[in-house]
Amino acid sequence: MAEEVVLLDFWPSMFGMRSRIALAEKGIKYEYKEEDLWNKSALLLQMNPVHKKIPVLIHNGKPVCESLIQVQYIDEVWHDKAPLLPSDPYQKATARFWADYVDKKIYDLGNRVWKTKGEEQATAKKEFIESLKLIEKELGDKPYFGGESLGYVDVAFIPFYSWFYAYEKCGNFNIEAECPKLIAWAKRCMQKESVAKSLADQQKVYDFVLQMKKHFGIE
Amino acid sequence: MAEEVVLLDFWPSMFGMRSRIALAEKGIKYEYKEEDLWNKSALLLQMNPVHKKIPVLIHNGKPVCESLIQVQYIDEVWHDKAPLLPSDPYQKATARFWADYVDKKIYDLGNRVWKTKGEEQATAKKEFIESLKLIEKELGDKPYFGGESLGYVDVAFIPFYSWFYAYEKCGNFNIEAECPKLIAWAKRCMQKESVAKSLADQQKVYDFVLQMKKHFGIE
Repeated sequence: MAEEVVLLDFWPSMFGMRSRIALAEKGIKYEYKEEDLWNKSALLLQMNPVHKKIPVLIHNGKPVCESLIQVQYIDEVWHDKAPLLPSDPYQKATARFWADYVDKKIYDLGNRVWKTKGEEQATAKKEFIESLKLIEKELGDKPYFGGESLGYVDVAFIPFYSWFYAYEKCGNFNIEAECPKLIAWAKRCMQKESVAKSLADQQKVYDFVLQMKKHFGIE
Repeated sequence: MAEEVVLLDFWPSMFGMRSRIALAEKGIKYEYKEEDLWNKSALLLQMNPVHKKIPVLIHNGKPVCESLIQVQYIDEVWHDKAPLLPSDPYQKATARFWADYVDKKIYDLGNRVWKTKGEEQATAKKEFIESLKLIEKELGDKPYFGGESLGYVDVAFIPFYSWFYAYEKCGNFNIEAECPKLIAWAKRCMQKESVAKSLADQQKVYDFVLQMKKHFGIE
């Protein structure tokens, strides 16, 4: 059967980037459809009526919503190439734990770094750096979170690298000075075509963040 | 190998109840250890140093954290009995989506129903009822979210039934009047021993919520 794969996405979305990387790792051709989040398409509203959010992966007409669910789905459907999740249940649970950690901690703290100012921002920055150090410790001396090859946690986390410059500029700090191993890992990931072509440019993300700050009146 | 399974839990936790049900469905004997969340045990802090939260499932000395990850782990390790997740990738993605919906929408809205008052509570109540109607629609005419038998979404969602009375009393509304099919589903689940013995008593949960309201100064 000819596979029809469509991704409804928005270029600076770290969630969308996850699915882009997973599809690239598996070598799946797909149609990328950019959404205007201030004027959502009828297709997006139809395919994700519950959350009305990108990314939506549409596989042979059927939607899969939520990025981590998409990555798992992609890994399960196209299982003969570039496995992302380990097969051992305990290792799988550990990978799910850290991907969930990225969603619950790193995403929120990163947001707070650019959306707040003054003392609130100072606290957010401190906690953000702590959260990065914690996940850096989990990486340890492995080349990837997935071990010798890119895995589920790498796919879940590396998109945030495209936002690092924006966090740094907004918070006036240097992530490499705090977490050198994490930056080495990010650069290693960026050597992979699947990652490099899926991530948004750091400067463009920063420009987007500046626009958003203006939009929300945070200056 | 003799299996050693321990669950660090707190009796009114809907998250803990998920793992209790999953273990009961699989017929796994385990040691239940009640935690005092105001004075967490050294074991909890050691087993979940990142979030320091219950439930923690400890299997042969190794911790699995986060309830939905635990349920998936239990389903994968003890896979020959009472499968919870469907094997088809699309059905699996759908089940994961609705379990995630319970965490992202129903949990937060339910909290807001009992933690707020006045207009804020009125809005929370309205949105909470809408969120229940939406998941009721997903249930449709099936006996369980999992189809003919209890599945992943049932395990993720049924623990909230033990909080329904507290939500109703705090918000002064009746869930059955709004979502009769959902209550019929909940009662169907409660006929299963795995569920009945895992859920906290509704009156006791309400008493606990009243204590919490007093503690937080919401009266």
